[in-house]
Amino acid sequence: MHVPDLDRADRIGMPEAVLCEPKTDEQLRVVLTDLVAAGRPTLCTRLPAERFAGLSADLTAVMTHDPASSTAVLHGGLPARPGRVAVVAAGTSDHGVAAEAAATLRFSGVEAELIVDVGVAALWRLEARLEEIRAADVVIVVAGMDAALVSVMGGLVASPVIAVPTSVGYGVATDGTSALHSSLASCAQGVAVMNIDNGFGGACAALRILGLAHRG
Amino acid sequence: MHVPDLDRADRIGMPEAVLCEPKTDEQLRVVLTDLVAAGRPTLCTRLPAERFAGLSADLTAVMTHDPASSTAVLHGGLPARPGRVAVVAAGTSDHGVAAEAAATLRFSGVEAELIVDVGVAALWRLEARLEEIRAADVVIVVAGMDAALVSVMGGLVASPVIAVPTSVGYGVATDGTSALHSSLASCAQGVAVMNIDNGFGGACAALRILGLAHRG
Amino acid sequence: MHVPDLDRADRIGMPEAVLCEPKTDEQLRVVLTDLVAAGRPTLCTRLPAERFAGLSADLTAVMTHDPASSTAVLHGGLPARPGRVAVVAAGTSDHGVAAEAAATLRFSGVEAELIVDVGVAALWRLEARLEEIRAADVVIVVAGMDAALVSVMGGLVASPVIAVPTSVGYGVATDGTSALHSSLASCAQGVAVMNIDNGFGGACAALRILGLAHRG
Amino acid sequence: MHVPDLDRADRIGMPEAVLCEPKTDEQLRVVLTDLVAAGRPTLCTRLPAERFAGLSADLTAVMTHDPASSTAVLHGGLPARPGRVAVVAAGTSDHGVAAEAAATLRFSGVEAELIVDVGVAALWRLEARLEEIRAADVVIVVAGMDAALVSVMGGLVASPVIAVPTSVGYGVATDGTSALHSSLASCAQGVAVMNIDNGFGGACAALRILGLAHRG
Amino acid sequence: MHVPDLDRADRIGMPEAVLCEPKTDEQLRVVLTDLVAAGRPTLCTRLPAERFAGLSADLTAVMTHDPASSTAVLHGGLPARPGRVAVVAAGTSDHGVAAEAAATLRFSGVEAELIVDVGVAALWRLEARLEEIRAADVVIVVAGMDAALVSVMGGLVASPVIAVPTSVGYGVATDGTSALHSSLASCAQGVAVMNIDNGFGGACAALRILGLAHRG
Amino acid sequence: MHVPDLDRADRIGMPEAVLCEPKTDEQLRVVLTDLVAAGRPTLCTRLPAERFAGLSADLTAVMTHDPASSTAVLHGGLPARPGRVAVVAAGTSDHGVAAEAAATLRFSGVEAELIVDVGVAALWRLEARLEEIRAADVVIVVAGMDAALVSVMGGLVASPVIAVPTSVGYGVATDGTSALHSSLASCAQGVAVMNIDNGFGGACAALRILGLAHRG
Amino acid sequence: MHVPDLDRADRIGMPEAVLCEPKTDEQLRVVLTDLVAAGRPTLCTRLPAERFAGLSADLTAVMTHDPASSTAVLHGGLPARPGRVAVVAAGTSDHGVAAEAAATLRFSGVEAELIVDVGVAALWRLEARLEEIRAADVVIVVAGMDAALVSVMGGLVASPVIAVPTSVGYGVATDGTSALHSSLASCAQGVAVMNIDNGFGGACAALRILGLAHRG
Amino acid sequence: MHVPDLDRADRIGMPEAVLCEPKTDEQLRVVLTDLVAAGRPTLCTRLPAERFAGLSADLTAVMTHDPASSTAVLHGGLPARPGRVAVVAAGTSDHGVAAEAAATLRFSGVEAELIVDVGVAALWRLEARLEEIRAADVVIVVAGMDAALVSVMGGLVASPVIAVPTSVGYGVATDGTSALHSSLASCAQGVAVMNIDNGFGGACAALRILGLAHRG
Repeated sequence: MHVPDLDRADRIGMPEAVLCEPKTDEQLRVVLTDLVAAGRPTLCTRLPAERFAGLSADLTAVMTHDPASSTAVLHGGLPARPGRVAVVAAGTSDHGVAAEAAATLRFSGVEAELIVDVGVAALWRLEARLEEIRAADVVIVVAGMDAALVSVMGGLVASPVIAVPTSVGYGVATDGTSALHSSLASCAQGVAVMNIDNGFGGACAALRILGLAHRG
Repeated sequence: MHVPDLDRADRIGMPEAVLCEPKTDEQLRVVLTDLVAAGRPTLCTRLPAERFAGLSADLTAVMTHDPASSTAVLHGGLPARPGRVAVVAAGTSDHGVAAEAAATLRFSGVEAELIVDVGVAALWRLEARLEEIRAADVVIVVAGMDAALVSVMGGLVASPVIAVPTSVGYGVATDGTSALHSSLASCAQGVAVMNIDNGFGGACAALRILGLAHRG
Repeated sequence: MHVPDLDRADRIGMPEAVLCEPKTDEQLRVVLTDLVAAGRPTLCTRLPAERFAGLSADLTAVMTHDPASSTAVLHGGLPARPGRVAVVAAGTSDHGVAAEAAATLRFSGVEAELIVDVGVAALWRLEARLEEIRAADVVIVVAGMDAALVSVMGGLVASPVIAVPTSVGYGVATDGTSALHSSLASCAQGVAVMNIDNGFGGACAALRILGLAHRG
Repeated sequence: MHVPDLDRADRIGMPEAVLCEPKTDEQLRVVLTDLVAAGRPTLCTRLPAERFAGLSADLTAVMTHDPASSTAVLHGGLPARPGRVAVVAAGTSDHGVAAEAAATLRFSGVEAELIVDVGVAALWRLEARLEEIRAADVVIVVAGMDAALVSVMGGLVASPVIAVPTSVGYGVATDGTSALHSSLASCAQGVAVMNIDNGFGGACAALRILGLAHRG
Repeated sequence: MHVPDLDRADRIGMPEAVLCEPKTDEQLRVVLTDLVAAGRPTLCTRLPAERFAGLSADLTAVMTHDPASSTAVLHGGLPARPGRVAVVAAGTSDHGVAAEAAATLRFSGVEAELIVDVGVAALWRLEARLEEIRAADVVIVVAGMDAALVSVMGGLVASPVIAVPTSVGYGVATDGTSALHSSLASCAQGVAVMNIDNGFGGACAALRILGLAHRG
Repeated sequence: MHVPDLDRADRIGMPEAVLCEPKTDEQLRVVLTDLVAAGRPTLCTRLPAERFAGLSADLTAVMTHDPASSTAVLHGGLPARPGRVAVVAAGTSDHGVAAEAAATLRFSGVEAELIVDVGVAALWRLEARLEEIRAADVVIVVAGMDAALVSVMGGLVASPVIAVPTSVGYGVATDGTSALHSSLASCAQGVAVMNIDNGFGGACAALRILGLAHRG
Repeated sequence: MHVPDLDRADRIGMPEAVLCEPKTDEQLRVVLTDLVAAGRPTLCTRLPAERFAGLSADLTAVMTHDPASSTAVLHGGLPARPGRVAVVAAGTSDHGVAAEAAATLRFSGVEAELIVDVGVAALWRLEARLEEIRAADVVIVVAGMDAALVSVMGGLVASPVIAVPTSVGYGVATDGTSALHSSLASCAQGVAVMNIDNGFGGACAALRILGLAHRG
Repeated sequence: MHVPDLDRADRIGMPEAVLCEPKTDEQLRVVLTDLVAAGRPTLCTRLPAERFAGLSADLTAVMTHDPASSTAVLHGGLPARPGRVAVVAAGTSDHGVAAEAAATLRFSGVEAELIVDVGVAALWRLEARLEEIRAADVVIVVAGMDAALVSVMGGLVASPVIAVPTSVGYGVATDGTSALHSSLASCAQGVAVMNIDNGFGGACAALRILGLAHRG
């Protein structure tokens, strides 16, 4: 039922990936079995530890799972390629989405540095890490609630900045809409935005940029 | 038809005020005529220059109009009282709402300082004014779009901080909801929020606080 | 991973606190272990009895948990400071949020009085408690559904009034938006509003005000 | 094109009425000309003074227009019938909707008393009118913004209470949704609600009730 | 903590009732124990069979539970009073809300007839029950999805019609908003609307009307 | 700048059409001039009389404008083709959208009958036209507010039924969302829905169906 | 309580069907027992394997359940009738809704072909199936997230196209609203849309069309 | 009042720009006068021809206005820099936003190619321009309504793709939210999104990327 998109990597440079969350157990089993047989490096996203543990042993045996990012890798990662991305997150609770972005980048052969706990309510912590962040080719900012970090970061660095709003929060921030809208309405110029919780997509946007920047 | 709430100032310390915007021309004429006769200091809000100019001469002759804040004063302001409020705005376009807050405070006898063009996309401009802001009793932050200034300010000052989101913006920020939600979901602790564009209300909240701080 | 914001109390006078709800079990364990080692008074919020019971014994042994407010205290509370806050709630079901506000104030050394079951559908119950409420420095009003209590209270007291809308309700009131919007659109002047269910934030706003009112 | 619903009054007891607002000038002209010819008492709603003035003289000559309610009557009103309704409004700005409700009742032969400026921010004004309100068969409460008056009134009177939320307001109250949701989520039991600004509908609901209460 | 509103029945004629859903187990236990001691007839709503079964035996022993309406009665119902209400529901799935309305009416001493499966997609079924419905003093229409039954019924009967939209549905109808908005925008004149799923409230609105119709 | 899609009629059987509303005056002038030169039958939609009157004489001279539907035809209509469509509208105010649907069908060579003023609040008017409606190949139902007509019609006819919700209304119905959601959540099976006010699209959906039904 | 609508098939040509999801276990048991006794072919929708397994053996013994579509058939399907429908889905995760549409068609005696994994991010996969899709009488497009497949398909085929948006997705696509709105705003002309996840309804719309196309 | 952010170009590489739309006439006059005096190249956006024409002659004399993009340039553009961007738009009506993006890029010294009328309802037109688009460093896709072009383009090119949703449309697409959500939920990987109608921001995001790709 699942037709692997085998030439996607060549065509648009994106990693082969499977979004596990919306699939039924049976659908997931079929897709993963096909991918194991296909033998190409593949990234599984939104596969939390409990669901991974429920897969059959012949599948888990050939997959490398990372609980922090809820990702798993089939048939190893892609070869190293130039580029370095800083993944910056405001709070501990945004860590899962940031880890998904970092895991996607590393699977794709790109160096990713995860920098957390640098929210704007404590600007000096952010300033302490600023040179490190400015040194990256691309900055991915992962932030929920008011997503104020997106605007502050966009005003501090000249690199491409990609915002990934998260659904962490309560009340008006419950589903991430407040963070999404803040990011889209950012007063910092030229910040581009991904769907809520889409750490994988933020990494793919960075990969497109790195593909341009480091092309032969 | 309009029954002035004559003992409100004594009871809850709020200024006598008339919100002109939703009233028909005829309703406004009747209310203002009654207030002129009543002879008490009164603030008229949301009364832009064009509408003020359309009032009859016997009304405008006894009112002092301020086009920047779209307010007018009847029978002078209230006596000076202790307290100093900083009204901080992110951009030129938020100036009208900030001016309404400042005009309300000044009408009420309180010193108000208006500090504009200190958005977070250029943090050093904000830092240049920080001591001045920290010296105020209360800080009112007026901000539209992402309202990131609210969180940054809340993390930098210990005083009471009141956020007034504005409807300045376009796209997801069109009606001020993005600024409102950012302010409510602020990562800075203890920032209290008013309705969108409610500069008058922000000033009233500051007056309640100053009433407590400078009593007796 | 968690970097305690050790000088926050000095800088903006806010209590050191951990929001437990969005953290994974592993993240919570790491943060709490760090905080135990740090040895500073800390408040844990949104930590219901069941989740507290699931923590390891070496953590629970040094924490004092309060099931009504779903809070826990590490290393005792802060020293007593002047000020008295009335936390007023409309219904039994709003009690959890009101208790969070009161627990935050008490942890911070401030006297807090919890007054519940005073909804506007039975005004005489409210009137029976009115002098008590008027005697407080600051009034926090916790209300869901129509949040009519916010407007009624704002018209009856001159003190600073902070509204905390709650998500108690069903139908149009399901997620607290109706209570939030009523509070923001209150016909009572100068009522400031917090995010839905943010009892902790309401207490912090009161602390900022008390800090101004009772400074040296 | 317009087919008058000639037996509606007999069938469900509702007045023959034309909602003018959404009709084009040409549609309105045709409908009114038909109604003039039909010779039955008819109420025209949402017909402000400027639009009425733009109608041809042969139409305006046989219509009685009321600018406060933006209604006009063709061929006189209906015969007097028993029943008395109190139409209570919180503010001057809600007057237009309240007047539409009262005009509809009076056209239908029912006594209607309009009581305005009794918002909950000044409860004693409301209390001064309470006996008068309690004496009515049905109470229609017209309120915008937080619509707190709906809940307060619902807790004070035993009669049928019909809430008509209004779109008066700004920010979160711009389109009347905050008032609608407050009314629907009212803590007072058994308050029934109409669409925003639907003064005509509120009067019709009262007419249904009076029809039951005063049937032969 | 729960202060019974003991004179409410005398004052506004509404039944003493407890909304169980939002209360914690501990809050519910305390409230019910108080009510058992108080000895007055009380209705418990939103108390499904499973939750009722989890109460202690000394409580359940003195309560009469009805699983179809998720209600329970303490100390018997109120004395019979004149009036008859038709509770009409479009589909089997709306039965729970309709049953809550009927149970509230019966507890209050009023005759209630439950008429289900009369949706507008099969108008002849509705017509078969029409005389029965027209004979009632008040009609409560319970409907989810498109709530088209509300408009059809409002055009067929002259009695007071109260719409109770339900959250039954999926897609755009998931939370009952589509049914609520259809009811509020009904083309039938004078239909009054309650909050989504508020069967209890619909019954209370009917009780207010019956109180007027059958007084003295 | 405008590239006519010259083979669309052959490919998917849809009429060549220009949506005038969102175009600037200059854009509209260029597009129409191109189309006049192209010499193919073309339909212009959302071109009200005032805007048509503002076009240059060399354009208006070769266009046939219909004010009721705000459409204009260039180079005559398409040849007659088999099929008959009933366009049914609830109220006078929905006439413009219904007329757009009918004009599109007639331009496309299909017979269209416009049946208005058949809302569900007066079911007997609808019943009087029912046989006529049942005789059509396809029924387009145009309805605003509660759109109850959509469900009633869907339960009465076996033909394909296409709902076109309209933005006619106020309060919760202001922008047509209530009518859209009612149509989508219709209890009548198999009713398909178009975007709000999209009379042109409803006609195109009917054309697709007629193309299948009457193919060689 | 459930009154089977026994002549519906004759009247409007729709299959007898039961929506199981919103019914309580007890309601479902009663309805199914009635339908078994009635002896007519009936389709049960939204009945997942786990819930089917929980039914009593005397019911499951006479039902044929299909886990992929969560449907079950009572008393066999309807006689074969002419017509062929292509059900096209963008992703694996949309398969459940597509299968519901196909199962409804097959139950109704119509040939249905399920074509999945043809999303627009890989247009060549879609092109490979295009002739097959063009050969169908009606095309049902099932798509979540951006629903871009709806517009692409609408521009490629001349047949009636029915869009069924799905709730598959996260962030802004969580509940299917993004897919619904994309489908309604499709740039392809004449695409008609069903409620989110309404595979059954999409099939019914196709049945109405086939009834017209293949009538006598 | 306006403090030019004079070192922004050096710091984050963004062009000095003024958003004219939300400013009052007086605010705009002051800002522009300051900028003329400052003597640095500056871009004015959202300045339509009519408003430009209303400026004083001493301002318009030194500005170069472009009506298609509603932009104006002060003191010439920035020096040419390497990079080429394709700005692709679905329809004529999206041209204004696309032109704003192109004007911003050209002002910044970057080559921009505007490619319009390539919507997905006519894929072959898009294919005819595909090589041209693939040759660009960065692709900006400007699309309203269903924004299906965003997903199709994201699947066809490997370059960085930036989506700018537009508010062109009606019904569910009225304010651009449908286009925004489609873009965010795009099935094409790594497409980054700007606020609705933010052509300027899309260009700035491209400038950040080109700055990385063509550095030293």
